[in-house]
Amino acid sequence: MTRAGFQGEAGAYSEAALLEALGDETVPVPLASFQNVFAALDGEDIDVAVLPLENSLAGSIHRNYDLLLRYDAHIVAEHSLRVRHNLLALRGTQLEDVREVISHPQALSQCEAFLDEMGVERRPMYDTAGSAKKVREQELAGVAAIASERAAQVYDLEILAAGIEDAEENFTRFLVLSRQPQTPPEETETKTSLVFSLRDEPSVLFKALSVFALRDIDLTKIESRPLRERRWKYFFYLDIAGSVDDTAVQNALRHLEEIATFLRVLGSYPRESVADVCSPRG
Amino acid sequence: MTRAGFQGEAGAYSEAALLEALGDETVPVPLASFQNVFAALDGEDIDVAVLPLENSLAGSIHRNYDLLLRYDAHIVAEHSLRVRHNLLALRGTQLEDVREVISHPQALSQCEAFLDEMGVERRPMYDTAGSAKKVREQELAGVAAIASERAAQVYDLEILAAGIEDAEENFTRFLVLSRQPQTPPEETETKTSLVFSLRDEPSVLFKALSVFALRDIDLTKIESRPLRERRWKYFFYLDIAGSVDDTAVQNALRHLEEIATFLRVLGSYPRESVADVCSPRG
Repeated sequence: MTRAGFQGEAGAYSEAALLEALGDETVPVPLASFQNVFAALDGEDIDVAVLPLENSLAGSIHRNYDLLLRYDAHIVAEHSLRVRHNLLALRGTQLEDVREVISHPQALSQCEAFLDEMGVERRPMYDTAGSAKKVREQELAGVAAIASERAAQVYDLEILAAGIEDAEENFTRFLVLSRQPQTPPEETETKTSLVFSLRDEPSVLFKALSVFALRDIDLTKIESRPLRERRWKYFFYLDIAGSVDDTAVQNALRHLEEIATFLRVLGSYPRESVADVCSPRG
Repeated sequence: MTRAGFQGEAGAYSEAALLEALGDETVPVPLASFQNVFAALDGEDIDVAVLPLENSLAGSIHRNYDLLLRYDAHIVAEHSLRVRHNLLALRGTQLEDVREVISHPQALSQCEAFLDEMGVERRPMYDTAGSAKKVREQELAGVAAIASERAAQVYDLEILAAGIEDAEENFTRFLVLSRQPQTPPEETETKTSLVFSLRDEPSVLFKALSVFALRDIDLTKIESRPLRERRWKYFFYLDIAGSVDDTAVQNALRHLEEIATFLRVLGSYPRESVADVCSPRG
C-alpha cells in the first residue's frame, strides 16, 4: 500500500486530489506543513508526496517550488483538481437553520455571492477540512463549514449545497513527488519540468529558450522568479514537451548548460490529458 | 489631494505601500475587495489605485491581472514593500501577558517560529489590520494582533515585537494604477508591462520573444497563464525594459502584433531602483 503524504487535515482538498491521482487504495498521510511533507518523503515516512503547485485563481505556490529545490524530490505525475466548495453541516440541518459559516478566508471569499444571499455570519478558520472537523467534534448546530466533498465523508456531515463557489473555473494543479525519478511509460505524452538560472546578460533568456525552439521542443509553462535574498539571481521555471530520455531533450539540456549558471531537472512525467487540463505551446 | 484606493482596512499593508509610494499627502481610501478598487477607479471615486501584484513568498496575485484586463486601467508606477510583521497590543501590555495572537492565517504562518517560542494560542482572522482594529475596539487585554507598523499608528497600539516573521525576505510588489496612461519622465529607467496571447503553434512563444531580442530589448519578467475557461487560450505577461515612446519598443510591439491574437500594453512607468528591487534580464 502506497503511503502518500499531503499538507492539511483529513478531508483537505489535497487529500481529494491525492485519491483522484493515486486511487482509493492509497493511504493518505496528513501532515502539518508543506515542509513536513518534504521531510517525511526524505525520511521515508511516506512513499510519495502530493503537493499543490498552482491554482487557476490564486497563482503559483512559490513555497513548494522553493522546497522542491531544497529537497531531492522528483516529479513523477501531475493532477489537476477541480475545486468545488460545499456547504457541510450536521445531519438533519436545513439550509435555513444555518446562521454561521466557517472556513478558510480564501474559501469564504470564493463563495461570497452564495453567502451574501444566505445572509449568514462568516468566521475565518485555519483550513477548510479543519472547519468541517470542528462542526463534527463540537457538534455545532446551526454552523456550516465550507469544505470538500471528501471532508463530508470523513466527518460524516451532510452536504447542504454543492458547488457554491462564485467562479466557474477553479482548478488546482498538484504534483506527485517521489524520492526516485521514474521513467514515464512509452507511448504516453510526456512533459519535463526544469528550473535554471542564468548569467545577468542581455538576451540571455532568449538564448536559453532558443535551445528548445531550435529543436522544435514546445514549452508548456514558463515563469520567472526573482530571488531577492540573492540580488541579481533569478530562477526560471519551465515545462517542456518530451522526456529526458528523448535525444532532442538531452541535446537541448546540454546546450542550456552552456548558458545556465544552475540547472536542475525536476522530473519527466506523463502529461495530463487535454480533456482535463490545458497547456500553452512555446 | 490625491485619493488613492486600496483593498483592506485602514492600517493594511496595502495602505503602508500606498503611503510609501505616493507620500503622506495622499488620502488613502479603504475598499472591501480588489474589484471594488477597480470599480472605484473607473467610477472616478478615487484618483489612483494601489494594488498588490506579486509577493516574493506567495507568488503572483492572478486576480489583479484578471481585473487589469477587464477594466481600462493603466500602470503608472510600481513600488515594492518590505513586509515586516509586528506584534501589536493595547498600551501597557507586556509580551508575557499575551495568551492569544490573532491575524490572517498567512501572517500567523509566516511568524510560526516566533509564535512557537511564545507558546501562545493562535486565532485566524480575515485580515491583519482587522485584527489590530478588533484588539482596539474590543479593548482585548492579553490578545495581540500581527499587523503592520501602520496599523499600530492607526489603532493606537503598542508594538511589543517588530520584524517577527520567519523568512528574511518578504516583499510585495504593488502597482499604482490610473485611468489615463502617463508618460514616464525622460532620463528615468523605464519599463513596460504587456499581456498577449498567441496562436497555438509550435515555437510561437519563441517567435514572440524574438521580437524583443532582435531589438536588444531586455525582458524583466515573464509569466504564462492558462485561461481554463477558454481552453487552448493562454496569456503571457511580460515586463520589458523601455517605454512605448521608444522607437525600438514601438517596432517590437508592431512585430508582436503580427503573431499575437491579443495584445495590450498595461503601461510604461519608471523602473524601481536596483537598490529597492531587482529584475532579471531576458
